[in-house]
Amino acid sequence: MQSTVIAPSILSANFAKLGEEVDNVLRAGADWVHFDVMDNHYVPNLTIGPLVCEALRKHGVTAPIDVHLMVEPVDRIIPDFAKAGASMITFHPEASRHVHRTIQLIKSLGCQAGVVLNPATPVEVLDYVLEDLDMVLLMSVNPGFGGQGFIPSALQKLRAVRERIDASGKAIRLEIDGGVKPENIAEIAAAGADTFVAGSAIFGQADYADVVKRMKDAVAATRR
Amino acid sequence: MQSTVIAPSILSANFAKLGEEVDNVLRAGADWVHFDVMDNHYVPNLTIGPLVCEALRKHGVTAPIDVHLMVEPVDRIIPDFAKAGASMITFHPEASRHVHRTIQLIKSLGCQAGVVLNPATPVEVLDYVLEDLDMVLLMSVNPGFGGQGFIPSALQKLRAVRERIDASGKAIRLEIDGGVKPENIAEIAAAGADTFVAGSAIFGQADYADVVKRMKDAVAATRR
Amino acid sequence: MQSTVIAPSILSANFAKLGEEVDNVLRAGADWVHFDVMDNHYVPNLTIGPLVCEALRKHGVTAPIDVHLMVEPVDRIIPDFAKAGASMITFHPEASRHVHRTIQLIKSLGCQAGVVLNPATPVEVLDYVLEDLDMVLLMSVNPGFGGQGFIPSALQKLRAVRERIDASGKAIRLEIDGGVKPENIAEIAAAGADTFVAGSAIFGQADYADVVKRMKDAVAATRR
Amino acid sequence: MQSTVIAPSILSANFAKLGEEVDNVLRAGADWVHFDVMDNHYVPNLTIGPLVCEALRKHGVTAPIDVHLMVEPVDRIIPDFAKAGASMITFHPEASRHVHRTIQLIKSLGCQAGVVLNPATPVEVLDYVLEDLDMVLLMSVNPGFGGQGFIPSALQKLRAVRERIDASGKAIRLEIDGGVKPENIAEIAAAGADTFVAGSAIFGQADYADVVKRMKDAVAATRR
Amino acid sequence: MQSTVIAPSILSANFAKLGEEVDNVLRAGADWVHFDVMDNHYVPNLTIGPLVCEALRKHGVTAPIDVHLMVEPVDRIIPDFAKAGASMITFHPEASRHVHRTIQLIKSLGCQAGVVLNPATPVEVLDYVLEDLDMVLLMSVNPGFGGQGFIPSALQKLRAVRERIDASGKAIRLEIDGGVKPENIAEIAAAGADTFVAGSAIFGQADYADVVKRMKDAVAATRR
Amino acid sequence: MQSTVIAPSILSANFAKLGEEVDNVLRAGADWVHFDVMDNHYVPNLTIGPLVCEALRKHGVTAPIDVHLMVEPVDRIIPDFAKAGASMITFHPEASRHVHRTIQLIKSLGCQAGVVLNPATPVEVLDYVLEDLDMVLLMSVNPGFGGQGFIPSALQKLRAVRERIDASGKAIRLEIDGGVKPENIAEIAAAGADTFVAGSAIFGQADYADVVKRMKDAVAATRR
Repeated sequence: MQSTVIAPSILSANFAKLGEEVDNVLRAGADWVHFDVMDNHYVPNLTIGPLVCEALRKHGVTAPIDVHLMVEPVDRIIPDFAKAGASMITFHPEASRHVHRTIQLIKSLGCQAGVVLNPATPVEVLDYVLEDLDMVLLMSVNPGFGGQGFIPSALQKLRAVRERIDASGKAIRLEIDGGVKPENIAEIAAAGADTFVAGSAIFGQADYADVVKRMKDAVAATRR
Repeated sequence: MQSTVIAPSILSANFAKLGEEVDNVLRAGADWVHFDVMDNHYVPNLTIGPLVCEALRKHGVTAPIDVHLMVEPVDRIIPDFAKAGASMITFHPEASRHVHRTIQLIKSLGCQAGVVLNPATPVEVLDYVLEDLDMVLLMSVNPGFGGQGFIPSALQKLRAVRERIDASGKAIRLEIDGGVKPENIAEIAAAGADTFVAGSAIFGQADYADVVKRMKDAVAATRR
Repeated sequence: MQSTVIAPSILSANFAKLGEEVDNVLRAGADWVHFDVMDNHYVPNLTIGPLVCEALRKHGVTAPIDVHLMVEPVDRIIPDFAKAGASMITFHPEASRHVHRTIQLIKSLGCQAGVVLNPATPVEVLDYVLEDLDMVLLMSVNPGFGGQGFIPSALQKLRAVRERIDASGKAIRLEIDGGVKPENIAEIAAAGADTFVAGSAIFGQADYADVVKRMKDAVAATRR
Repeated sequence: MQSTVIAPSILSANFAKLGEEVDNVLRAGADWVHFDVMDNHYVPNLTIGPLVCEALRKHGVTAPIDVHLMVEPVDRIIPDFAKAGASMITFHPEASRHVHRTIQLIKSLGCQAGVVLNPATPVEVLDYVLEDLDMVLLMSVNPGFGGQGFIPSALQKLRAVRERIDASGKAIRLEIDGGVKPENIAEIAAAGADTFVAGSAIFGQADYADVVKRMKDAVAATRR
Repeated sequence: MQSTVIAPSILSANFAKLGEEVDNVLRAGADWVHFDVMDNHYVPNLTIGPLVCEALRKHGVTAPIDVHLMVEPVDRIIPDFAKAGASMITFHPEASRHVHRTIQLIKSLGCQAGVVLNPATPVEVLDYVLEDLDMVLLMSVNPGFGGQGFIPSALQKLRAVRERIDASGKAIRLEIDGGVKPENIAEIAAAGADTFVAGSAIFGQADYADVVKRMKDAVAATRR
Repeated sequence: MQSTVIAPSILSANFAKLGEEVDNVLRAGADWVHFDVMDNHYVPNLTIGPLVCEALRKHGVTAPIDVHLMVEPVDRIIPDFAKAGASMITFHPEASRHVHRTIQLIKSLGCQAGVVLNPATPVEVLDYVLEDLDMVLLMSVNPGFGGQGFIPSALQKLRAVRERIDASGKAIRLEIDGGVKPENIAEIAAAGADTFVAGSAIFGQADYADVVKRMKDAVAATRR
């Protein structure tokens, strides 16, 4: 099992002072910066692109930046994010005609590579690529749509993917995104996740450090 | 002729402290905030979306926000920007199958509406919609591609559109975007522009107020 | 000038008894059946396809069926409508990469061919194809969107196209669609239209014959 | 096992008198109205849209209307059909990037939701959504193409999906569409279907009641 | 007026011995190799790509290779053709969102640049780019469809473009493609063309030199 | 197990004298001609289309021509290749919305039909169509991208598909394409392949007959 990672999604941060927000959340104990990229085609929203990522690096952020591409197609923009300082890049396999090739492209640019499974996506999409991956990201809400809670069938999928990762013997992270909060993170960790994205659950709170700590403690309790 | 407007493009600002950047440039005498939206489909880049616009409004920006949609298709995202605080919304006519309808949509949401002409787009696209518009934006570089200077044929197009606007007798702004700087703004103003977008020409300088003043002075000299 | 044609749009008829509705409106003096095809791509609605056209022919309708394709792309479905009994087929030039070829395709299948101009479409699209056409259809509302009135700039476009048709010396019809009713048809006819689509202005009334007569009388008054 | 439902496809009805046709077939013992929507994109044909559905409701049809969307993308048109009186809406998962979300959308509008599997689609697409569904529709011909008989491998797929539905313990209907007729319905029912679409097998016959009765009897015989 | 160029289209050559065919036609007096690229998207056919162009260069062809891109979009494949030895590259403006930029891209790679007008395309597309071009290609048949003769309205368009080129004072070639043969080339040259594509009119004949000579003689007669 | 087939990919041949190249490689013992069709949409390259296939037939090639369609969509071009002399046509299932129908289309035109699995494609796509196929083609490199070696996970997939083919009891070929050479063909054959595509491994060598013989011998050694 990989070490626990809390990755706050900056979509919930204050974009008028993003550098400060990111500094604060990292100082509060968060491990990574989760960076949600939407293009108004793969999902019905448009968020932020490579130049915002680059601005964070120039601002001095040294923590891993975990770029989740909710875009289609994916290959053209990958080099832009690699150059802008992304540490890992994940994409949706249905958004690439050449999934194996996209993974190699990300890795060839010095980033870690992951694929993302939508709530309805079967785990068979991992059959011939799992061993090439650094991370699998499971969506526990539908990306790009607001106001959703954690989808219960994601727990069942976490267990299925955890089993495959363990069987591979590789150091592949299992990340979960959508509706994660201190109240349910233990159950999610118990199902197999080691990397946790949270947006308003963190940035919507007054005391970032307190939330991050409660999340980490809850996960740690399941690891004992 | 409309009053002169300087509209700095925030694509050239520091995204780690965007609120402060915008405050500074407005305090330096800039009139509007120019907001470039790219979707990685209409142009090969992805920039910023409605939630960044909304963050500026929440930060306290009251100046007009001039949203330039380099996206395709355009209708779905227009209500998002209207809700996020856009003052005017411009779009490329080749990115909408129903140009007249898109203009009405923007206006029905309480925003001013404009169309944007790429460097190669003929002015005939204005023939049956000019009188419905609040602004025409002429691109003097190709949107979404870096490293270009002001395209000379834009001066000829400025004169052609200025003539049409004057003939209409309507208060329609004529905006120019691409390669505008203190050194060439007089010639551009003389060709008919009244609204000037500038990116690195402003944000790349140490003293925003000085650049804005030099631009305004140069325009004013042509107005006498 | 061509003879006057009133072409009721069956989109406003009762689809539960379409044969009877069409019989009634033709018996009431209407000349053609106007058949609006929408595909949920070129416009945000989906209406009726070839098999409804074919059903009208099997039902015994012998009047011209005037098929307006609000679809994109257009070539694949044209033979289906020719086979289903269409008399004329009009399409939007921006929905075909090969406008000249599409016109030839329609004619090669024994139908009359026309192009449709959206409210914002410049008349230059007719420059090299007008002489190959049997009809030009001008939209005076945006196709596929509800609740719109007659767009005033359509009168100016009617005059521009009428001038081109007259200059060509060819028997080309000039059709108008959108917001036409007994109250404004005289002004529209005076601007150059000879073929008039009307939907709810006819099917929404109790006495079809009365409306059709009032429309024809109003047009005739402008012809004296 | 759910009760047996016979759902005549109105694509085979006479569109000149659709209300009467539907009245007749329901009076003859049919249970639902099957409504095939094609958009000339997902399939190479264009049929009928929301306003035909609405006309049936206004005509007085109270039986369930079972809308099968052979369109892509699917989300935009779903509210139109819900408003037009659809009882259940099924769609093809490959036509939606967000299958789980589309299911929730249909249900949030008060309709039952189903997914449709093309002849070649693997059953794994059901893995994480089956429990959210009211119906699974298996195609035993290729949608949108004429002149095909029942594809034998559909029996094997019926058995596979029946097993999954039974294992779920949920009241999920299993519908079959394509080449169903009195002669083969027993075998199809035995493989697990409980809801049967039939087009020309019903509307192509002189006596609707006789066909419907023979189909129901044949199914009942397999249930004893 | 530019010198006369005869550019045989290799689509009509024998692809089993293309090097020999090209050698022969050049030895017979042809000036350029016309290379028709179709992608089964912009036109309903797929022909030949960069590696065939490169093979001709490796075979020893030194004559200009005139690549006509009937593809959409166009930018991605342009560098491949530049690298494969193309001398000039022409594209259809409706197949590029950024026509001015595409022209600059072609020129930046060391090739000459041209735009192609379909039979129905208005000449206004040249308004703001003509002076950047090395060539304008007018289609006198619809690209990608077989069995067509020279479209008469192309003569009128040749005259219109010739006038614009002459007014520009620039050395811009005016090429014509479709249905050109010894019998009509004089009339076409008189209308303003200086560069002539011919396919089966050359490769379908026994004596290439004789056809090329007759074409050149006919053009020369109009130049006296 | 089917007989061994060596199918040289003509993408690696000299296109200036393709007829001679194909004659030579067939005389050298190759069994089929492998014909790679790329459309610059499904893959980022454009190669050769039906008229090159037809030229080979006219040149006198009688060996099977094995057409691999890396195009999207696929149905429109299939009849063109059938008419041009293709013996078998394979396509990627993600490039057709109606996989079962596409297979029937190919067979209805008198060709053998196959599907192609990209390196990441799960084998479940075969579940309901395997018995209708004449061939399954597994990609051991990513189609359309250069400079790749044999992807090791292809061996595991070969074994999985071989098992399914054997279980079906049908005479279905199992073809492999990508990085096959004399040095690794034995291992590939042992994993279940019977049909081997090779490009530069053959055409890049001085003595075609020697390479083909070494490949066949290596396979034969695994069959004993």
